[in-house]
Amino acid sequence: MNQKTAIRHALSVTREADFAAWYQEVIAEAEMAEESGVRGCMVIKPWGYGIWERIQTLMDAQIKAAGVDNCYFPLFIPLSFFAKEAEHVEGFAKEMAVVTHHRLVSDGKGGLVPDPEAKLEEPLVVRPTSETVIGAAMARWIQSWRDLPMLTNQWANVVRWEMRTRMFLRTSEFLWQEGHTAHADRADAMEETLRALEMYRAFAEGPLAMPVVTGEKPENERFPGAVATYSIEAMMQDGKALQAGTSHYLGTGFAESSGIRYQDREGAQQYCHTTSWGVSTRLIGGLIMVHGDDDGLRVPPQVAPQQIVILPMLREDDGDAALLAYCEGLKKALLADKAFGEPLRVLLDKRPGKATQKRWAWVKKGVPLILEIGGRDAAGGQVSALRRDRLWREDGKVAFEGLAKDDFVARAAAQLEEIQTALYAEAQAKRDENIVTGIDSLDSLAAFFAEDQRYPGWVQLGWSRPTGADLDAVVAKLKTLKLTIRNTPIGAGVPEGSCIFTGAPAVETIYVARSY
Amino acid sequence: MNQKTAIRHALSVTREADFAAWYQEVIAEAEMAEESGVRGCMVIKPWGYGIWERIQTLMDAQIKAAGVDNCYFPLFIPLSFFAKEAEHVEGFAKEMAVVTHHRLVSDGKGGLVPDPEAKLEEPLVVRPTSETVIGAAMARWIQSWRDLPMLTNQWANVVRWEMRTRMFLRTSEFLWQEGHTAHADRADAMEETLRALEMYRAFAEGPLAMPVVTGEKPENERFPGAVATYSIEAMMQDGKALQAGTSHYLGTGFAESSGIRYQDREGAQQYCHTTSWGVSTRLIGGLIMVHGDDDGLRVPPQVAPQQIVILPMLREDDGDAALLAYCEGLKKALLADKAFGEPLRVLLDKRPGKATQKRWAWVKKGVPLILEIGGRDAAGGQVSALRRDRLWREDGKVAFEGLAKDDFVARAAAQLEEIQTALYAEAQAKRDENIVTGIDSLDSLAAFFAEDQRYPGWVQLGWSRPTGADLDAVVAKLKTLKLTIRNTPIGAGVPEGSCIFTGAPAVETIYVARSY
Repeated sequence: MNQKTAIRHALSVTREADFAAWYQEVIAEAEMAEESGVRGCMVIKPWGYGIWERIQTLMDAQIKAAGVDNCYFPLFIPLSFFAKEAEHVEGFAKEMAVVTHHRLVSDGKGGLVPDPEAKLEEPLVVRPTSETVIGAAMARWIQSWRDLPMLTNQWANVVRWEMRTRMFLRTSEFLWQEGHTAHADRADAMEETLRALEMYRAFAEGPLAMPVVTGEKPENERFPGAVATYSIEAMMQDGKALQAGTSHYLGTGFAESSGIRYQDREGAQQYCHTTSWGVSTRLIGGLIMVHGDDDGLRVPPQVAPQQIVILPMLREDDGDAALLAYCEGLKKALLADKAFGEPLRVLLDKRPGKATQKRWAWVKKGVPLILEIGGRDAAGGQVSALRRDRLWREDGKVAFEGLAKDDFVARAAAQLEEIQTALYAEAQAKRDENIVTGIDSLDSLAAFFAEDQRYPGWVQLGWSRPTGADLDAVVAKLKTLKLTIRNTPIGAGVPEGSCIFTGAPAVETIYVARSY
Repeated sequence: MNQKTAIRHALSVTREADFAAWYQEVIAEAEMAEESGVRGCMVIKPWGYGIWERIQTLMDAQIKAAGVDNCYFPLFIPLSFFAKEAEHVEGFAKEMAVVTHHRLVSDGKGGLVPDPEAKLEEPLVVRPTSETVIGAAMARWIQSWRDLPMLTNQWANVVRWEMRTRMFLRTSEFLWQEGHTAHADRADAMEETLRALEMYRAFAEGPLAMPVVTGEKPENERFPGAVATYSIEAMMQDGKALQAGTSHYLGTGFAESSGIRYQDREGAQQYCHTTSWGVSTRLIGGLIMVHGDDDGLRVPPQVAPQQIVILPMLREDDGDAALLAYCEGLKKALLADKAFGEPLRVLLDKRPGKATQKRWAWVKKGVPLILEIGGRDAAGGQVSALRRDRLWREDGKVAFEGLAKDDFVARAAAQLEEIQTALYAEAQAKRDENIVTGIDSLDSLAAFFAEDQRYPGWVQLGWSRPTGADLDAVVAKLKTLKLTIRNTPIGAGVPEGSCIFTGAPAVETIYVARSY
């Protein structure tokens, strides 16, 4: 047995052995979420919700800085709104939760049933997105060019009935933000579409330390009714792609069906050009699959609900008071410092329990820095520090480092910023290693994604950008290989060679991958 | 016509003339919310939602400081959860939105209908509160005394089907926070119940500048299943009471029905003592009815989305650039300062439009300080400032004050804090004026609330605290007068005299009032 294999990891399943099972174990062991007993709906536990709160806080600041106003629109949407949006509804496969009654009544056998007397005249749909209801509001709110651009956003829960669910990635209910904007012309709307896309890229690559490719989705992957759909795509550690955020330019089609018009400076009525853009709790699924390791989650410091956890090694004796006082002093010193422009987030975990058990619980949660403080550390002005991204020593032992308290405090903020950078660099290196070029035929594409290759990554290709039936044929062919086109990266330039699907000259670059 | 009547108020209806119509007009003119077209559900517009965001931000910090963890629980609750909570459901009058289908299908006539093939085996209820589903989670999460107290909170939307709705006060869907906690014993649970109540009192009287009475609700007004229900009650300007927040001690009854048990230090299984507490978007309705005046809303600076609005008097000529530069400088200087421990919130309103129209829009929105800046002000280093809480001069003109820019900047934070204090003092004086004592018979109670007295306020009484059927008789009698018992104020002491309902000696103080 060599030194490497001597490591006893905190999880029972490795990424290598079974990525899907590993994913579920991280979520369970990091206490992020659990099944609720309601089909497809999860309970988001404090650590998972804490990450979502961090995402919300940082993203909301960006949204506000862009001059977008938050609003709140109703949970329920009348059926008739969907009927008039036929194309729109098609895209949601009509799998939606439908409210038909507004009262429960006893069934006479100790149970309850929907009251037949309280059947709604018009059923209500639980919003799968608020496109239609926000469109109706914009039609009321916008009169003239002076009202434009109108920039709105909503943080809300939405429901899309899903047959196969996976926590954070695909749940019937999920949390998201949906931006909806209206503009006087195409140029302004396109600028907003790309501004939101860039906001998502910077957010993914900044606070989430998750490298992404930004680009336009192919025609067949467009949001229903969109003129252009853009996405950020991240590579998971199993080589699959995750669409982590989208931004759509909707042209005037949506404005036409919703009646969003304005009077221009010359007094003429014009339809608005609209956009929409969103990210969801799916980002947390991406975070897990990009940064997690065989010891659990690793949370980038910028979105960690707690960045530093202090674990006093309590003995339930007279020494505990002095130890706790020392830890409180340490916490106070750390709270006075800032990383990423915000005060450090530090938890002193005084709960009863064994220190090693508590340590491993925090390792699995992925808190960036763990401090274990014993009586001797306190007496000597020391701390014992562990970086979650460098957990193991070469000899298979946990890589605690003994330091003078003051030195640790002085370095803590810089160290958190280092960890953030290190996680990004690690993810980027993995991603870049697993983007393959030079595939020049369908056969070699099929061979690359052959079943025995578990982590094949993405293939970068030039293609001829076929449309209509030609595109359908490409999509069908890819489907037989369980592949999809992810996007055309912005700024990739025109590739050389010919399209492996059509044989025609390649006109743009695409990524082809398995995906979530 | 005297000077007073010379004032031309910004609203078309006064509080005096028609309080209910005035309330609706404030909401419309301050652009806080509007009907959505979905029965009983409102669209919360940026200014209204901005106030809710301020409430969330400040309250959430208090909740976190108390060691409570935020979670997220599912929107849908299986019908069976309610069936086993018979008593619980009774309290919600069974008026709930029920999801029965998960798919829409074409009706063959261009419309959509719930797909009969996609009927749910068990209908799902849209949460009217998350008591049951959180109880089920706590039963899973709590094993031993080490897990206690368990302190959870959720910010969410909930739905209670309402026949008669009023924006912010009673809507089918509303936004709230619901705290749910489990404790080892009664003392600890009661401490938490009263901690939450005190948090609400301090929040209402602090950031909302809304004086409240904290106290225990009478037996008949308890939350279904609660051992004790406490509330904060605020007086609106029409003299009615608004229950603005509640905190419940639930004993072990709820833990028994949900199976929330723990192993105590001696190894015995015990039921937890639980609590729950909540406030909602109803607070915004209270805010309007406490602070609004005949010119619209007045928002206390601490919860104002913008505290200072700068209105440059643009002329669409060459002078605009210098004017805007001056305004940007002013904004920057103000943003460097803090009030209430937070950076000032300042908006420079550069939108096209007439300065006076924009001024009145901001007056109606109730922004605490408005600055109008013309070219001459900019040239002379001046500002023209208006305090929303002192809008009118004696002569009926708008009370703008000319000041050196630097003087205004130096005073701005202190002035915002003064406005906060002034709004509280004004509301408290009104409230105290309208609490009446000395009513010593049912007849004088009836006379006090006779129909021609529009703003009668509250009556403070001593009563004998009847229970059971005796209490029912009191409640029925009060109902004929359209009155309710609000609460028994904490710390009011034992009053003298006898109970006007029972004739027995009074044992505690209550407030009797009309209410929302």
